[in-house]
Amino acid sequence: MSHPVPKGFRLAGVYCGIKSNAAKEDLTLIATDSDAVAAGVYTQNLVVAASVTQNRAKTPCENFRVVVVNSGNANACTGERGERDSREMARLAAAAVGGSEPQALVMSTGIIGHFLPMEKVTSGIAAAAAKLGRDNAAFDSAVRGIMTTDKFQKTASRSVEIGGKPVQITAIAKGAGMIGPNMATMLCVVMTDAALSATVAQELLTHAAERSFNCISVEGHTSTSDTALLLASGASGVAPTSAADRAVLQQTLDEVCIELAKLIPSDGEGATHLITLDVTGCASRADAHHIAKTVANSPLVKTAFTGNDPNWGRIVSAAGYAGVPFDPAKVTLTINGMLIYEAGMPAAYDAKLVSESMRDNREVHVVLAFSEGDASVRFWTSDLTVEYVNFNSDYST
Amino acid sequence: MSHPVPKGFRLAGVYCGIKSNAAKEDLTLIATDSDAVAAGVYTQNLVVAASVTQNRAKTPCENFRVVVVNSGNANACTGERGERDSREMARLAAAAVGGSEPQALVMSTGIIGHFLPMEKVTSGIAAAAAKLGRDNAAFDSAVRGIMTTDKFQKTASRSVEIGGKPVQITAIAKGAGMIGPNMATMLCVVMTDAALSATVAQELLTHAAERSFNCISVEGHTSTSDTALLLASGASGVAPTSAADRAVLQQTLDEVCIELAKLIPSDGEGATHLITLDVTGCASRADAHHIAKTVANSPLVKTAFTGNDPNWGRIVSAAGYAGVPFDPAKVTLTINGMLIYEAGMPAAYDAKLVSESMRDNREVHVVLAFSEGDASVRFWTSDLTVEYVNFNSDYST
Repeated sequence: MSHPVPKGFRLAGVYCGIKSNAAKEDLTLIATDSDAVAAGVYTQNLVVAASVTQNRAKTPCENFRVVVVNSGNANACTGERGERDSREMARLAAAAVGGSEPQALVMSTGIIGHFLPMEKVTSGIAAAAAKLGRDNAAFDSAVRGIMTTDKFQKTASRSVEIGGKPVQITAIAKGAGMIGPNMATMLCVVMTDAALSATVAQELLTHAAERSFNCISVEGHTSTSDTALLLASGASGVAPTSAADRAVLQQTLDEVCIELAKLIPSDGEGATHLITLDVTGCASRADAHHIAKTVANSPLVKTAFTGNDPNWGRIVSAAGYAGVPFDPAKVTLTINGMLIYEAGMPAAYDAKLVSESMRDNREVHVVLAFSEGDASVRFWTSDLTVEYVNFNSDYST
Repeated sequence: MSHPVPKGFRLAGVYCGIKSNAAKEDLTLIATDSDAVAAGVYTQNLVVAASVTQNRAKTPCENFRVVVVNSGNANACTGERGERDSREMARLAAAAVGGSEPQALVMSTGIIGHFLPMEKVTSGIAAAAAKLGRDNAAFDSAVRGIMTTDKFQKTASRSVEIGGKPVQITAIAKGAGMIGPNMATMLCVVMTDAALSATVAQELLTHAAERSFNCISVEGHTSTSDTALLLASGASGVAPTSAADRAVLQQTLDEVCIELAKLIPSDGEGATHLITLDVTGCASRADAHHIAKTVANSPLVKTAFTGNDPNWGRIVSAAGYAGVPFDPAKVTLTINGMLIYEAGMPAAYDAKLVSESMRDNREVHVVLAFSEGDASVRFWTSDLTVEYVNFNSDYST
């Protein structure tokens, strides 16, 4: 689905031969008309792609001009040659829009351990630069150019008034599984025409990512290449300087990032359920996040959702091994609003009714409440199906 | 397979109606002829079965007389009534062998959140006490009485000379998946006729468990009921008092526990491979263990083994998110002795040859070597198959 492109941005996606299927774009450029602000958050994996190392050193910054994204090849675990290739990609993209290498960021996603086909990348950058635009066709081609195993396009946007003037936020993302040859990685680019300093942009993005991209999982395998960028062109002329304006922008950015983030487990490889897990009543947000992640990534919890089984024993016992202290006698669990477990004992629920509610809804809402404090987190994950196992075991390097 | 029962022990398994299938024993008693030493290690899950809480308070001890095990019902998440039932089981078992409640331990495995059928348990304990023996039939019935989803019996034994005199160690265990209604839990009872103090028995067991039961996983979901006991009757009259004797006994106990522990992922639900993962060259054993566990529990790593795919990208990237610092440029990986990845780059290996070696061997040996120190760990896990997903999603509470 197309969205308005914020002022000051042009973009395009092309096919240049990195993917074997010529029907699919595999290189995207997103450029600003003049120097812009860029902030980034990156994978916490120790084993990272060359692009991640280089982007980390370049953001946040206030002289950003272009980001080049290729799909079909992650350029990860490719050593020094991979680092040179990534830097050359940045140089080529920057030159194509009249900038220099430090002003360009790079994202690569796809197979690990293969060198980039630099001739194809070079021609692709030139072709994309010639096609840069702001219409729906340009936007859609750019979105397709970053996709790998995604079954659908992942986009979101909001228009918000700040100081009586409109600011546009539009974001694109990709991701369906985590990492490995043939695997997808989570990538996201948020564009806005708000005028932000690099420091503020970084703060806004870090806050939003903490509540969106850091609260999703498919199988819990952290990628070598996860990247989310916030690009601010300033072309709206609107600078959110007051605390109230900042709060409005933060709230809007959070919404956009959460909307996008939820699309990833919703498109999780083989997934039949999107599970929204609210962990409440914890002593700290970190505690709540740790419990949520542990529950979400348990294969026994995931397969219970696959089978439409309100299997509280798996959920409560997964929380129990998260390494976070809590009183097991004060745990309460609801599934789709129905009370399942209360004060350390199963509640008198209608198992058939709960199971039917899970079977009839692709989205399942789980609330796991503790009595340790006021902190909470909302986390999204997918279930684990036979299709996931087939997809990830049929593949051969 | 039957093994010699160490001196001073008698045991028996019976069917008393806890399981729906009358062909399967569901209650086992293991008794000592007089006061004996008992040490225990238990699940680290915060949510624990009543039996675990009570056993923890009772071990290590030097007045042990009997352990009663029931399968088919975990008596977990059953509140105060569950605690009373567990204590009553201990009282009945102790009385049946002429002891008192504090001298009896209890293990329960099976469905969570259901009350124990205490009438059946009571008659089962009486029936088992009447059948206590030392022959193969008694041993085999006791082994069957602790099984749930296990496809085969898990036993191991060693005879070792200490000070020129024989000491027998014989152990039984169960486990195939982790926890949840319908799930198996890891239980183990090691019997020896060595004469040990409670302190020494606890030290020996803790050391052995750290290298065996704490180094296995199926899907990584920690049970509410995991328990391993070391029971020492002293009936051999052999007391390993010197450091050399202790070392011999420790080594033998480690061997028995490792042999048993490996049988659990080998019987992992739906498993087609048993993966032995050596993580070497770490700064500490805890670091190596953390990396091994993270790699072993990654669904992407597991499905790669299912597909006979030497997918080093998944293994190396899983190590990267284990939270342990290491130099990615100094990582080396071998699979079944073939070099796959070296110094941050893929090695020139024959992918077809490696894949065939994985396909043709149910056991796969992976060595993941770092350059951070001298610590290492050996870990065993199973792969993740369609059968695992079907088994765990078909089930309904």
